[in-house]
Amino acid sequence: MQVLITGGAGFLGTRLAKALLARGTLTGPDGGQQPISRLTLLDVATPAAIDDPRVRVVTGDISDAAVIADALTPGTTSVFHLAAVVSGQAEADFELGMRINFDATRLILDRARTLGSRPRVVFTSSVAVFGGPLPAQVTDGTVATPQSSYGAQKLMGEILVTDYSRKGYIDGRTLRMPTICVRPGVPNKAASSFASGIIREPLNDQPAVCPVAPETPMWVMSPRKAIEGLIHGHEIDGAALGATRTLNMPGLATSVRDMVGALETVAGASVAARIRWEPDPAVIRIVNSWPGSFDAVRATALGFAADPDFESIVRAHIQDEQKR
Amino acid sequence: MQVLITGGAGFLGTRLAKALLARGTLTGPDGGQQPISRLTLLDVATPAAIDDPRVRVVTGDISDAAVIADALTPGTTSVFHLAAVVSGQAEADFELGMRINFDATRLILDRARTLGSRPRVVFTSSVAVFGGPLPAQVTDGTVATPQSSYGAQKLMGEILVTDYSRKGYIDGRTLRMPTICVRPGVPNKAASSFASGIIREPLNDQPAVCPVAPETPMWVMSPRKAIEGLIHGHEIDGAALGATRTLNMPGLATSVRDMVGALETVAGASVAARIRWEPDPAVIRIVNSWPGSFDAVRATALGFAADPDFESIVRAHIQDEQKR
Repeated sequence: MQVLITGGAGFLGTRLAKALLARGTLTGPDGGQQPISRLTLLDVATPAAIDDPRVRVVTGDISDAAVIADALTPGTTSVFHLAAVVSGQAEADFELGMRINFDATRLILDRARTLGSRPRVVFTSSVAVFGGPLPAQVTDGTVATPQSSYGAQKLMGEILVTDYSRKGYIDGRTLRMPTICVRPGVPNKAASSFASGIIREPLNDQPAVCPVAPETPMWVMSPRKAIEGLIHGHEIDGAALGATRTLNMPGLATSVRDMVGALETVAGASVAARIRWEPDPAVIRIVNSWPGSFDAVRATALGFAADPDFESIVRAHIQDEQKR
Repeated sequence: MQVLITGGAGFLGTRLAKALLARGTLTGPDGGQQPISRLTLLDVATPAAIDDPRVRVVTGDISDAAVIADALTPGTTSVFHLAAVVSGQAEADFELGMRINFDATRLILDRARTLGSRPRVVFTSSVAVFGGPLPAQVTDGTVATPQSSYGAQKLMGEILVTDYSRKGYIDGRTLRMPTICVRPGVPNKAASSFASGIIREPLNDQPAVCPVAPETPMWVMSPRKAIEGLIHGHEIDGAALGATRTLNMPGLATSVRDMVGALETVAGASVAARIRWEPDPAVIRIVNSWPGSFDAVRATALGFAADPDFESIVRAHIQDEQKR
């Protein structure tokens, strides 16, 4: 198996790469487990060095066809397409969002189409495809009406993945990811960036700003479950997905208040007290357009799993990131 | 008002042009009726001559940015974007369908965005955005999962129209049109072409081939109602459309059998007997993926109207086309 990860220098891309290298195999074209012989990390940034002879690094702009041609070769059997411009940035810079979130996705799919190699493609979409008036619980039958350009760009990518799969150009599957938290590192321009910041910064003895109200509903997934989900998304039988290749991933329905409560339970009141509450209308507008709860029937039936509670997410974050 | 019609040499485009010229006004940026001072017809084909000083013709490929720049000027207040590659052709030639049905739509919207002129844009989409397992009656809350590249391309265009409107780049509205019949002229590569052919050809003393079963459900609209709907779609208040600018147009739920029955009632059994039934699996696959009935609540509430029955559609066709 020759695997390509776009966004390979990012947090999820790096974790996914390590998980795949440790796992060693993926389902191949014949349906059996095949060894991973090459893992290409494509990113505009240089990935952290991984000392493994299977790893190849391609540095470049994913909206550049020559870069995609270099990264996605005739032998590529699997693509994990994670690279994206985050929601806040895509809203602020419309052209950048279209170029990276949509045009690059199309370039990747078209590269596979013209190669005729029909790789498995795992595309990460987002709950941000939903917006506007929504039922209390979003189901697999809820219409996606994005209220952000990020959501619109992801939704168009989903449609491409399904149509390219229907035409036999790729074997695609799109996973609509919940808000991933707790992310390590520093804040980014995602409207959801605070969801990690309000846990991560206090645990690092830093102050954190929460721009939304405590009662804000959140639909979240830990990095561990996200990596499990991405790999599981590769392994399932694409033909079983039917009329759409898009799946709402199961997540944990929580609220900002409950997240902070879990932080307090795990780390103490003095840690949780490092959060300042400063409402930001721009963030509130985007985050409040997203649904807070799903009934992810199709994905659950296909074996995807959610985190059991937010305390376990905080504990896993401490294990994975704080004690290094 | 300076109006642009793409697909201006086509059947609907020509009829729309004549209807707009006869009407003389459209709602302008200030909300009042304003005289139409210029009507630009853009098409790859040369439109039939319309003897009116307000008419301007631009001939060229709508996927060429220079052509769009010529046709959509800073003064353009209204765009009716009708140009498309039909379903059967978009399925047979994937790249052509993407270029004309999607890229050209984006070019038009981007031209408006960069001009900053915020024109009203009426975009014609189609019931072909629906497919796969569907409820007996499609509603405004039914998820669109297209099973044709034409449907996928139109759905992506819808998402752009809504997002460009949300961002204030255009004031867009997308109308998902039923199968328009009876179209005049000759068969085209639309999978739905037979729906007009089985009425039009027998009335012209010609044989017609019906490639689908008599019980096939059809969701149809006459050319007269389509033109009324396009103009009404321009006139409604875009801000009232809410989270999505897309509307399922009301149509007439009928079946191929009832359509032929209406032909027989209006024109006699000998006319209806000119239809040969020759199943075509490729057409059946596409047509059967479309819904046969809708509950178009939103559009009906906004004042859009359907034809009352198929006999009146046949009679209107005879009036409009057969007696010239």
